[in-house]
Amino acid sequence: MRINWPVPDPELPAGVHPALADAARAASAAYGRARQLHTRLELREEVADGADGTPTMRVDRIVEDAILDSIHRNKVNLLSEEAGFVDNGSALTLVIDPVDGSANAAFGVPLSCFAGAVVEDGKPTEALTTWFDTGRAWWARTGEPTPFRTTGRTTLDGAAVCLMRPKRGTEEAWARVASRADRIRVLCTTCLETMLVAEGTVDAFADVGSDTHRIMDLATAIVTVPAAGGVLVDLNGRPFDFEPDLSRRWSGVAAATPQLAEELIATVLRP
Amino acid sequence: MRINWPVPDPELPAGVHPALADAARAASAAYGRARQLHTRLELREEVADGADGTPTMRVDRIVEDAILDSIHRNKVNLLSEEAGFVDNGSALTLVIDPVDGSANAAFGVPLSCFAGAVVEDGKPTEALTTWFDTGRAWWARTGEPTPFRTTGRTTLDGAAVCLMRPKRGTEEAWARVASRADRIRVLCTTCLETMLVAEGTVDAFADVGSDTHRIMDLATAIVTVPAAGGVLVDLNGRPFDFEPDLSRRWSGVAAATPQLAEELIATVLRP
Repeated sequence: MRINWPVPDPELPAGVHPALADAARAASAAYGRARQLHTRLELREEVADGADGTPTMRVDRIVEDAILDSIHRNKVNLLSEEAGFVDNGSALTLVIDPVDGSANAAFGVPLSCFAGAVVEDGKPTEALTTWFDTGRAWWARTGEPTPFRTTGRTTLDGAAVCLMRPKRGTEEAWARVASRADRIRVLCTTCLETMLVAEGTVDAFADVGSDTHRIMDLATAIVTVPAAGGVLVDLNGRPFDFEPDLSRRWSGVAAATPQLAEELIATVLRP
Repeated sequence: MRINWPVPDPELPAGVHPALADAARAASAAYGRARQLHTRLELREEVADGADGTPTMRVDRIVEDAILDSIHRNKVNLLSEEAGFVDNGSALTLVIDPVDGSANAAFGVPLSCFAGAVVEDGKPTEALTTWFDTGRAWWARTGEPTPFRTTGRTTLDGAAVCLMRPKRGTEEAWARVASRADRIRVLCTTCLETMLVAEGTVDAFADVGSDTHRIMDLATAIVTVPAAGGVLVDLNGRPFDFEPDLSRRWSGVAAATPQLAEELIATVLRP
């Protein structure tokens, strides 16, 4: 069975870097075509292993192929989870998660997005996240405030927290956070969930220690959450970097304030 | 801070009962206005206790007021969680959850919906669910097949399951289901999650025993999930009825097949 809902063009704000905007548009168009052409079963079929060592679903492949065309057109480099590093001799690298929430995208759960950051000299300068099912976009430049703001909450008691689903070995930490927070959601799309933190819809998002995140899962949050007044850190305090080493993993924690991030991390690490 | 995203008109299929269609349109329009006029904090403020004994948030009140206007215009009766039973002397009663996923709606998590069923002589004849943030609609008539189908999955191993967040006393049952299923999501909107079961996006949805559901939380699923080939049952086998007794509660389980519902229930009830 096909997913019978349209994928609109993303609603991009003025000022987005043209190469990043083109990649985002290409991603929405490709995912929309993929839904029309393929059943859910076909979209989630594993067609290869990505450069990061995890399996690539057909939906990932289709969208990444469209992004590859886009970056060649725009003569910029790419770092992405399936293709790895693609060198077009540019000073700019787009660090992109073509389909964040791949399983959602393949099954039809309407929570998946394109996420991309522009990186120059190892530093991200701007980031764009576009939600496929609605065209909503969140854009931020490093060091410049965004029109949207985090909630400003400082305490875990009473907080609304998005978590990754409990994974083997992290069940107890997961349960500790769930029992402290007021509301827990599991949406299975890190890039969208961190944008919900940035826009003040939820107070925090966390991987409670499964070390699932690659740099492209967190690149947009690294720019956008601080620009909106929040923080984005690794659970174990490891610094983020944009090296094209896809074996590196983090447990990302996005929070409305540094105090909330600290309390969340303490709850995970210290029973 | 306000929720700065629009609420489109619902995209209603031809054939929806005019009173139900009018209520759905009124709900989207009212929620859209509420987002423009009120901050998140104001939307979630508890302004009263509903007829069912749970607190009413401002967002619930605003949308239900618009629905009350609609049912008076259309001279039908209403059964809803805040107002209770409103008798307009009609043979038809609309059983409505004005805002399913009230917390999502108030905070801005884009997962909330209108859900309404037409009930005649105690039997539901049709049901409509409309997702506020996109206008997507799911409609079904009792006993008539829908264009969308469940996944047909029969086993919990490998399944994608939506759960209510773990509540006090149900944590162990929750963890048992989470450890068996392949993917777990917590979207906090029963009516949308059961439509994802009906359209074949996820395999099942369950309240693992917290007895949270009132009849208006399940009314649309009672019609729509079976019409799409699945089942909608109570965890403890209690029959559903449409009596205006809002003290009654169920633990709804929606599944792609009877076999999957049975296995899910067995996993919850028998450690």
